[in-house]
Amino acid sequence: MVKIYFCGSIRGGRELASGYREIIRILGESGKVLTEHLGNDQKIKEKDALMADREIHDRDLEWLVESDLVVAEVTVPSLGVGYEIGRAIQYRKPVLCLFRENAGKRLSAMIAGSPDVEVYQYVEPGDLKEKLKEFISRNAARRIC
Amino acid sequence: MVKIYFCGSIRGGRELASGYREIIRILGESGKVLTEHLGNDQKIKEKDALMADREIHDRDLEWLVESDLVVAEVTVPSLGVGYEIGRAIQYRKPVLCLFRENAGKRLSAMIAGSPDVEVYQYVEPGDLKEKLKEFISRNAARRIC
Repeated sequence: MVKIYFCGSIRGGRELASGYREIIRILGESGKVLTEHLGNDQKIKEKDALMADREIHDRDLEWLVESDLVVAEVTVPSLGVGYEIGRAIQYRKPVLCLFRENAGKRLSAMIAGSPDVEVYQYVEPGDLKEKLKEFISRNAARRIC
Repeated sequence: MVKIYFCGSIRGGRELASGYREIIRILGESGKVLTEHLGNDQKIKEKDALMADREIHDRDLEWLVESDLVVAEVTVPSLGVGYEIGRAIQYRKPVLCLFRENAGKRLSAMIAGSPDVEVYQYVEPGDLKEKLKEFISRNAARRIC
């Protein structure tokens, strides 16, 4: 089963949490989402109370290294999401960045201009089904070859 | 002369721009700041109007690779700053992250918990003089050895 690392903002702001949840649900139809707690505020709070920052970092980085591909929601500016994209490039993971074009934000030039990631603009998470399936099947095939 | 790559938020938000300017000024006493436009809104606008995102990314990444050390202001959540920190780790640069403790923010666990960066909390940019000089001289010495 394809292992997917999903990135979304936590301490940078949770205003798109319901969108993350919907994206994680769609990704779950094609593979295993290692970071599925990202759609769930309650689970984030519980883990945050139990784990030190170093433990959170090391567990997430382990998942990132273990994953077959990375899908990042990049609408809400987030240091963690940017860091994970940078490290994903280091580990040569395929990276898809999803940017909500109707949220009144402007995407960082370091993400929009990076030749090592694919950026896809969307309006509603429900519109992402086809794109996500295509990205996963293209990269899952590459993994097997 | 020590080459310093300074990171600060651009499209993520410019509320700390005057602080970036002050940090760049202090860094300039000990080395060459490759990204000194980060303190200057007018220069950012001019470059933004002239350069495509891909050009901005490639020039900044080239500076990052060329630099001896990286100093990142991480108070304002920013995808670009997170990305640059992740890539700096890939290129084994010494990274100092500066976090303003009185800004009502909570630092990402991926930065606060990363064993590959040093995090330093401060109140006013003026308080950073000694810390910045110590970080630069320690890592400049390492570079020469």
